[in-house]
Amino acid sequence: MQLRIPGPTPCPPEALEAMGRQMMNHRGGEFAPLLRSITERLQRIFQTNGDVLLLTSSGTGGMEAAIVNTLSPGDRVLSITNGFFGERFSDIAVAYGADVTRLSYEWGTPVDPDGVARALREDTAIKAVLMVHNETSTGMANDLERIGTVAREFEKLLLVDAISSLGCVNLPVDDWHCDVVITGSQKGWMVPPGLAMVSVSERAWQAHARARMPRCYWDFSLAMDSYRKGQTPWTPAVSVCYALDTTLDMMLNEGLDNVFLRHARVGQKTRDGIKALGLSLFPDEDYASDTVTAVSGADWLDIPRLIRVLREQYDVIVAGGMGKLSTKILRIGHLGYVCDEDIDLFLEVLEKALPQAKK
Amino acid sequence: MQLRIPGPTPCPPEALEAMGRQMMNHRGGEFAPLLRSITERLQRIFQTNGDVLLLTSSGTGGMEAAIVNTLSPGDRVLSITNGFFGERFSDIAVAYGADVTRLSYEWGTPVDPDGVARALREDTAIKAVLMVHNETSTGMANDLERIGTVAREFEKLLLVDAISSLGCVNLPVDDWHCDVVITGSQKGWMVPPGLAMVSVSERAWQAHARARMPRCYWDFSLAMDSYRKGQTPWTPAVSVCYALDTTLDMMLNEGLDNVFLRHARVGQKTRDGIKALGLSLFPDEDYASDTVTAVSGADWLDIPRLIRVLREQYDVIVAGGMGKLSTKILRIGHLGYVCDEDIDLFLEVLEKALPQAKK
Repeated sequence: MQLRIPGPTPCPPEALEAMGRQMMNHRGGEFAPLLRSITERLQRIFQTNGDVLLLTSSGTGGMEAAIVNTLSPGDRVLSITNGFFGERFSDIAVAYGADVTRLSYEWGTPVDPDGVARALREDTAIKAVLMVHNETSTGMANDLERIGTVAREFEKLLLVDAISSLGCVNLPVDDWHCDVVITGSQKGWMVPPGLAMVSVSERAWQAHARARMPRCYWDFSLAMDSYRKGQTPWTPAVSVCYALDTTLDMMLNEGLDNVFLRHARVGQKTRDGIKALGLSLFPDEDYASDTVTAVSGADWLDIPRLIRVLREQYDVIVAGGMGKLSTKILRIGHLGYVCDEDIDLFLEVLEKALPQAKK
Repeated sequence: MQLRIPGPTPCPPEALEAMGRQMMNHRGGEFAPLLRSITERLQRIFQTNGDVLLLTSSGTGGMEAAIVNTLSPGDRVLSITNGFFGERFSDIAVAYGADVTRLSYEWGTPVDPDGVARALREDTAIKAVLMVHNETSTGMANDLERIGTVAREFEKLLLVDAISSLGCVNLPVDDWHCDVVITGSQKGWMVPPGLAMVSVSERAWQAHARARMPRCYWDFSLAMDSYRKGQTPWTPAVSVCYALDTTLDMMLNEGLDNVFLRHARVGQKTRDGIKALGLSLFPDEDYASDTVTAVSGADWLDIPRLIRVLREQYDVIVAGGMGKLSTKILRIGHLGYVCDEDIDLFLEVLEKALPQAKK
């Protein structure tokens, strides 16, 4: 089976072996060095001097944590959306009573940093900007570096869903002025789902001290207090910690720059291959993601049928679209434990499957 | 290493092997039958015709979910506490704006069902009763059957933390009038942490329809909508699902009554052994838990030293006390993957270690 979805991504044998290890006391002396070592290596990959906290949840839990830890009900928030996960981020903020203005772009079209600046200039009451770095739903990378500069210029808190980009493409959290950045274990980190990892800047801690949205499980202060004792406030996903301990070494041994180059190369190879087969990319190619490729197909192509043929006849699993793109695109994950040969193999299979998926 | 803490509990080899399986598409056709089959078997063990939902979190996440899904800010709640986890349940309700009255008993002393009835008679505005079935912090089983009868008599919603009892001792959720019952994967279920499992009665769904506490990640409606499609709303802890699929079969093959008898036998053996060594039990013995034994020691015993000796010289891991009992008791877990021989071995080691732990 070739799993080519944007997550859970395939795990290397070392990670799967670690998942099978026996339990330990998460309040004992063995767990503390494991937690500290994982956290310190995460800080290197996040490229941050800030804190990084582990939450036992999916990435969405991390998004909720980012919001409830830094905002109060009624706070004005600018939420930049150009895809399914941008909408989700907005929806969570609304659920907790934030006063959300959506700066919406068509799904698959880029965010205009000047538009962000304009929105912040027009509404000085805005406290925070929410955005998705890598829109998994459209295969698009938003220009976080430029938007981060804008958010800093206007002194706004910047909360970033980087669930499917961090650890795969360059995201220097501090240099790009990101205050809370969320990622999830089952993406570039090459381990199963169960952990969200969240960075917290000094500015985010200041906002946290004033933030009054209700919280307990997600509370950053409780997480930080426990971390100082080498613990998490609630029982952590111990097995995922074991596995992450292994894959963080793999990532750092490969070298961060090499990890980023590999994802860039694999992303380009995927896009080139897709176009060579006569298929169109869904997003503006200048902003195409190096971790997820979204394909809008061709006139003659029945996308749901293609997904089925790939699965049933070739044992290759790709994802369909999300939300309003449900039957309109297919999405190919190429993040984490992925190499050039995986994509060569995938493109070969895709070429064979295409004639069976005509309308 | 013998892990004798109240969780994470040791996992059988079959569960660990399952943890090491490769990822699958959690939105694909393979995951749906796995999720449905796990859920149906959980319903049998919960002894409920109601729904059972899987949440990717620790048990505490399940407690938070129970509260935010059934209550509104300002709702009056009676929270019965006689231990650390009762306090935690109350604290979560307070954090979300419930108007909480604590019916507190000394840690380790039983809850008086007549006292519960009195409290409900005196304050007719109370909407819900919160309680812990098995107080992991004190090794005590609260009389859920009688309190459930009282709660139903007064037509109150009953939310129950059964994290360390369900799947180990008899807890017929429907017969005992429980509306939301929470458990966690790393306890009696013999798999690693990462999933909370929560039952939802028809009355709880009615309360949910009116409940206005903010929620997104924990939302029962979103979980139920996804379940109908064979999915979870957010990426689940897939590996823990694989493992739970295995251990649920083990539990049902052993037979629920046999699982309960084994825990009763192992609990009694632990208590008898503790007393035979001249040590005292912490809680009222009539209410001693069959899954966790709390030992208050003896005049001559240095409990923190005993815990250290057991760990360093015998590779046996027990837990200390929680909160205000931190250095005052030790706690022995005997739930999930545990048999008589494990306890025989533990008691032998304990006997050897005691002389090295004198004050």
